[in-house]
Amino acid sequence: MIKKTLRMTMLFDFFGSLLTEKQRDFCDLYYNEDLSLSEIAEEADISRQGVYDIITRAAKSLEEFENKTGAVQRWIETRVRLEQAGSLITQLIGLRETGIEGARLVNELNDLIKGIYELNGV
Amino acid sequence: MIKKTLRMTMLFDFFGSLLTEKQRDFCDLYYNEDLSLSEIAEEADISRQGVYDIITRAAKSLEEFENKTGAVQRWIETRVRLEQAGSLITQLIGLRETGIEGARLVNELNDLIKGIYELNGV
Repeated sequence: MIKKTLRMTMLFDFFGSLLTEKQRDFCDLYYNEDLSLSEIAEEADISRQGVYDIITRAAKSLEEFENKTGAVQRWIETRVRLEQAGSLITQLIGLRETGIEGARLVNELNDLIKGIYELNGV
Repeated sequence: MIKKTLRMTMLFDFFGSLLTEKQRDFCDLYYNEDLSLSEIAEEADISRQGVYDIITRAAKSLEEFENKTGAVQRWIETRVRLEQAGSLITQLIGLRETGIEGARLVNELNDLIKGIYELNGV
């Protein structure tokens, strides 16, 4: 059994486009649609072992892409900071001593931080 | 001549680790160290055409990685927002009507935004 971890789903979201079409299709069914190996095998009309081999090789490629680029780890650390920034902004909004101009700036900041999150969010 | 554009430098920073070792070495000398094709050829003891072919193929791979993932474009858009956030924070700091607690939160926010920039900056 190949583990359906959150990490693998993230790796697939980040690097899935770099896989071959078949690897991508099978991984999508396995990680995102939560089909079993047998279900994918039946649908694709190949053996369960064949599906297993393709997904295992794809998973190895995804791990290699991450080992080389560190993109997922960087996004995880960025997300933590964005969430902390969001929390600070919520506290600033709660203060109500920032004045009208201050409140406007804080709201604009809030929209920007949310925008960054959505732009990169996977 | 292969163009030494800012875009190509960014693509190399993002995806250089996914190239072969030789492609990476030659691209590093060409884009980062600003050596000419002839200088690299002399150093590697191969023909200038050979160096040209390897860097051209590498550049094509880098463009393909970007076409598939959009990672550089996403970072460019993220950077614009981070810079806007930095500018808003500077304005908030300049307001001086946020109170002590407000000023503390704004400074913490400033550090976080800078941290995100540095974490992803290339």
